[in-house]
Amino acid sequence: MTLENFIDEAISPWMREDGPENDIVLSTRIRLARNLTKEKFPIIAEEKDLDNLGLKIKNKYNKRTFKDYKNLEYISMSDLSHVEKRVLVEKHLISPYLAKTHSTGVLISENEKVSVMINEEDHIRIQIYFSGFQINEALEASFAFDDWLEEDLDYAFDEEKGYLTSCPTNTGTGMRASVMIHLPGLVLTKRIKRMLPAINQLGFVVRGIYGEGTEATGNIFQISNQITLGKSEKDIIDDLRMIVIQLIKQEREARTRLLKNSKVTLEDRICRSFGILRYSRIMESKEAATRISDVKLGIDLGIIEGLSHSILNELITLTQPGFLQHYAGKILAVEERDKLRAKLIRERLKIKN
Amino acid sequence: MTLENFIDEAISPWMREDGPENDIVLSTRIRLARNLTKEKFPIIAEEKDLDNLGLKIKNKYNKRTFKDYKNLEYISMSDLSHVEKRVLVEKHLISPYLAKTHSTGVLISENEKVSVMINEEDHIRIQIYFSGFQINEALEASFAFDDWLEEDLDYAFDEEKGYLTSCPTNTGTGMRASVMIHLPGLVLTKRIKRMLPAINQLGFVVRGIYGEGTEATGNIFQISNQITLGKSEKDIIDDLRMIVIQLIKQEREARTRLLKNSKVTLEDRICRSFGILRYSRIMESKEAATRISDVKLGIDLGIIEGLSHSILNELITLTQPGFLQHYAGKILAVEERDKLRAKLIRERLKIKN
Repeated sequence: MTLENFIDEAISPWMREDGPENDIVLSTRIRLARNLTKEKFPIIAEEKDLDNLGLKIKNKYNKRTFKDYKNLEYISMSDLSHVEKRVLVEKHLISPYLAKTHSTGVLISENEKVSVMINEEDHIRIQIYFSGFQINEALEASFAFDDWLEEDLDYAFDEEKGYLTSCPTNTGTGMRASVMIHLPGLVLTKRIKRMLPAINQLGFVVRGIYGEGTEATGNIFQISNQITLGKSEKDIIDDLRMIVIQLIKQEREARTRLLKNSKVTLEDRICRSFGILRYSRIMESKEAATRISDVKLGIDLGIIEGLSHSILNELITLTQPGFLQHYAGKILAVEERDKLRAKLIRERLKIKN
Repeated sequence: MTLENFIDEAISPWMREDGPENDIVLSTRIRLARNLTKEKFPIIAEEKDLDNLGLKIKNKYNKRTFKDYKNLEYISMSDLSHVEKRVLVEKHLISPYLAKTHSTGVLISENEKVSVMINEEDHIRIQIYFSGFQINEALEASFAFDDWLEEDLDYAFDEEKGYLTSCPTNTGTGMRASVMIHLPGLVLTKRIKRMLPAINQLGFVVRGIYGEGTEATGNIFQISNQITLGKSEKDIIDDLRMIVIQLIKQEREARTRLLKNSKVTLEDRICRSFGILRYSRIMESKEAATRISDVKLGIDLGIIEGLSHSILNELITLTQPGFLQHYAGKILAVEERDKLRAKLIRERLKIKN
């Protein structure tokens, strides 16, 4: 597995797996923030020290395998072009912050299920992805991977505070658990607006697909814990699981209600979106997201057949600016991207599954 | 040929012929208004007299053939249901006025190229249709048919005024020549607004596809002469031909300009319309007309392949309320019509040509 593989495919291999509840939950992620003792935290460290850490991680872990996470590949951000970094961001393999910061790197497994960001806000940020709704599995896997890393690394840990982190909002567990959830039914029935404040009150944050400050493109919401301190990892994910189970239930009810009360209107909306995606010549990213969301809903409801559940993940990533420009092999103006986006979507929808 | 044939097919047989300039001119029509001497004009005649005339025409011409106009069929309006009459109106075989007036009838040839309305505003109104732009041919054909009818009928004719008609606007030649013309390029470039007043000043009228007071549904305009008196038939059609030639030229220029300056935007518009027509589940008549107009433009410009030039005529007629209800075999509410319209369009577009 080389860099080319990570950036040539819009969809990570694990996304093709049929996760539980994948008509609604696209993916589950656990992120653990860790720092090393005897090293200055990245935000105050000198470049030389950060580069040394990057080299150390590369030497220790490059090409190694742990369980499913085969053939880990260390990529230094300084080796990547702007577009290549952007593609990794669009695939959620790195954060936008990692992409724009000096002396950073990432360790990615062949199946792209694990990515370990080096010298982001913290020395080490482990990210583990699972398809569908697999929050316990993800937590277990992240603990196992964390333990494996710790065999060779000394984590900064305080008996009282827990894991020490650059930003106090991460101190404690250092864990952020998040679920990517597709809620077109709740958006169409306008019930989502009433539900989001309730989720916030429980100490969880709702964001768009590309994290903080982004809109809920394509009716995809990312729900994650805000609190990392004073609550065990198990308690946090129990609460998150409860919220997600509620959201799934409400979303299913909304879909049933839509099918009961306005079946043809819903079918018309879904089929028109499919027709437009299959034929348009110019497609802006926002419209693409909305229409792909409609098509995904159509697949879930059996209105559209022969397409994979992962089409939403795949097409949303495929049609992001970075991926489009990587595909074109050059920087593209907005209008050129809109044309290429339409073309890639047309071609993708011709293929069954 | 029976009534069933006239109303089961949305497209008249002559429409399938490849008329000249049929990328722009859909059809040419000549209508001649004639009245009989020694009979009261329909607007003041008693029902009994009108019924007698209907019977006389039926006895003289039913099942007869003149040239191409084979096996003329006399249909009395009183034998038709509301929906059946509506279908004939939608196919332009009769006028809305004929459909709603007592003691009326129509004589239609097998190829639907000629229809002779009896007891409309005038005793006899001959309509001759040609595919594409064939104004001289249509005039010649209508004169020949008129002469054939006159062999057995005495027309009210005044040496000075010409043919006498119920409404003075028809007196003289009794002729209305009209051309159905598709001008999406001039509409999209907004040039049409400047051209219509000029056409009016020349003594010609611009109407929508279903005559007086109707909108230019699907960018289809009907251009016809206003003046019938003091100008020979030949002079009238020469002027009309000149206007139409100008419109064709301007429309072609507008299309060339659109292709030059905004090719992808135009392609996007056309292909989206095609995609929506192929997949939608609810389609209102106004949207249908606009999108079918886009598709016809796409066919003309070679952007959409495998569909016939007559698709615009066909689909616009096919999706009119009367035809939809005839097809369904029952009266349909507006929402039911919108669903059936979408269905028929989807099915029609699956068939090549």
